[in-house]
Amino acid sequence: MNARLDDRMRRAADEAAAQGFDALVVAPSPDLAYLTGYDPMPLERPTMLVLRSGKAPAMLVPELERPLAAGCPSGGSIELVGWTDGVDPYAEAARLLPSEGRVAVGDRLWASHVLGLQGAVPAIAFEPASPVIGRLRAVKDEDELAALRRAARGADETFRAICTMGFVGRREEEVAADLADLLVRNGHARADFTIVASGSNSASPHHEPQGRTIMPRDAVVMDFGGELGGYYSDTTRTVVVGEPTPGFERVYDAVREAQMAACEAVAPGVAAQQVDRVARRIIEHAGLGERFIHRTGHGIGLEVHEPPYIVEGNEWVLAPGTTFSVEPGAYLEGAFGVRIEDIVAVTAEGVERLNRSTRELQVVE
Amino acid sequence: MNARLDDRMRRAADEAAAQGFDALVVAPSPDLAYLTGYDPMPLERPTMLVLRSGKAPAMLVPELERPLAAGCPSGGSIELVGWTDGVDPYAEAARLLPSEGRVAVGDRLWASHVLGLQGAVPAIAFEPASPVIGRLRAVKDEDELAALRRAARGADETFRAICTMGFVGRREEEVAADLADLLVRNGHARADFTIVASGSNSASPHHEPQGRTIMPRDAVVMDFGGELGGYYSDTTRTVVVGEPTPGFERVYDAVREAQMAACEAVAPGVAAQQVDRVARRIIEHAGLGERFIHRTGHGIGLEVHEPPYIVEGNEWVLAPGTTFSVEPGAYLEGAFGVRIEDIVAVTAEGVERLNRSTRELQVVE
Repeated sequence: MNARLDDRMRRAADEAAAQGFDALVVAPSPDLAYLTGYDPMPLERPTMLVLRSGKAPAMLVPELERPLAAGCPSGGSIELVGWTDGVDPYAEAARLLPSEGRVAVGDRLWASHVLGLQGAVPAIAFEPASPVIGRLRAVKDEDELAALRRAARGADETFRAICTMGFVGRREEEVAADLADLLVRNGHARADFTIVASGSNSASPHHEPQGRTIMPRDAVVMDFGGELGGYYSDTTRTVVVGEPTPGFERVYDAVREAQMAACEAVAPGVAAQQVDRVARRIIEHAGLGERFIHRTGHGIGLEVHEPPYIVEGNEWVLAPGTTFSVEPGAYLEGAFGVRIEDIVAVTAEGVERLNRSTRELQVVE
Repeated sequence: MNARLDDRMRRAADEAAAQGFDALVVAPSPDLAYLTGYDPMPLERPTMLVLRSGKAPAMLVPELERPLAAGCPSGGSIELVGWTDGVDPYAEAARLLPSEGRVAVGDRLWASHVLGLQGAVPAIAFEPASPVIGRLRAVKDEDELAALRRAARGADETFRAICTMGFVGRREEEVAADLADLLVRNGHARADFTIVASGSNSASPHHEPQGRTIMPRDAVVMDFGGELGGYYSDTTRTVVVGEPTPGFERVYDAVREAQMAACEAVAPGVAAQQVDRVARRIIEHAGLGERFIHRTGHGIGLEVHEPPYIVEGNEWVLAPGTTFSVEPGAYLEGAFGVRIEDIVAVTAEGVERLNRSTRELQVVE
């Protein structure tokens, strides 16, 4: 018995019921780890936790993984239903579900599994579960906030160190390898992504570091993060190698101003889309609206990207404990890009920035 | 232009049409990497390749990843359709799909995305794509077979080395760490899984190594593998620490005999389920039928588990070039377990074992 996990399972079942769902189905994913402490690999053999308000949790598991599931932190609170290779697991799952109604399924459940469930119980309307579980997971407790602060601090130290390690004449992938090393040295269990995009590559927001050699006057966008204690860091800084090219500083200043204003707009009761609007308006006023080709941010916690998304059309109301990125950017194809990203937490009064490294333009060598 | 990838996309589209599908949708996954060389992280922002027989390939991509997709090995052969944060990506995807009919979707597509597609095009019946793409991927070409042989050789060397490194008094997780190191030293880019299950833990097929200290007379099941050149190794050996407990050798011999007979049953034209039956019959004859709680094997290639599955009910006819595991086992709860696993390839005449390390019972110290 684990009171914290039992409480999470109960709250998830109740939230599903409150949203009109008759059951909630969760597959191996950060959702399952959050609710049960059980975190197996998602595979072709379905594992599915079924939560229904007022009923005990049940979980369909491949028979060969029953000992593993029984030994998980909430194993004692979950009725395990094994299925054996060769039988139809979806027919077994159907016995844990209502025969009709609305059922929420974890966003990451594989298509093969959701189609299998639809075939087994055609009268059920399946919908994504993120409006249910995402809402629980978005509000972090004190332990989770502490983990996210530690991860952010490690990313900040990584940025400070990389600025001193030299850029000119090195390949993007070398700098990326240094970022990965530094994340681990600064407490991360592992680096998860290390974008290093130099010169015209910096105009590609999700550029993959490659053989390009960094040159004087290049802008270099570095977007990096990893896992520390189960929670993620994710920060972006844009530096310039020596004297910037004409026009760069104006773009940098617009993005920095947008990032600052968007962070300051964060407070309980504010809608997610409002934070996006604040950033976007400033970048539009600088004549760069067409160059800001992505949303302003995403929630972060057990996943690098999770609800709430900071995007036009998202009326999600921010509540204390919610953590997300604020990362406006502007990308001038063939020339350069700029992005600045911090993780913030909504507090009772307003906002806490988890990343503290400087957002002043750093000139590196 | 990449002729090999263009050919794979064309064959996938044609195979889908031959199976009566009007389109094939593939999301970031080993399927997408196989067809296009493009291998981004699966995320909440959908990326979907749409293949239709007789039409040029098209791919829906988040606008911010357009440069990444355009630069992939088959970027020049695919029409890219960008979508921007804030619009409904499923409505955009619908424009690439027929308005009705049958559409195959990659097994690993997230539930949130397949439900989004169903909402956008309600007249389409979606089905898993593994009967289409799995059939292509199951038959390896010479380059793929060479990669799988190299990976298997690295796993074999890993087993030889671990047997000399001592077991008594060490924790399962220490031996697991040694296996991971050895896989990398023997050419793997990384270890993917290293099950070390000792004593009564060995009766749990997917046991996660933990703090248990290995004792004299323990059985130790080691199931390990990783990636080498994009392809996977996966092998299992069961060793015993000094003199085995009563009854162990009888079980070991039954599993070894079953594994050998199942491997020898592999040939072109044989059904997958037949290989399972051969192994199962021998273990049943030894009175251990109830203890063999999983299928006999799984395909392997760009994924550790992929079609064909070697399981009762699977009438898939084996063809030359197909690679899969043969891994019968028997698990006596509270006492010990035994599993022996090799990767085999179907040849024109019969079978090639990719793993060659000994299956004689190894007594370790």
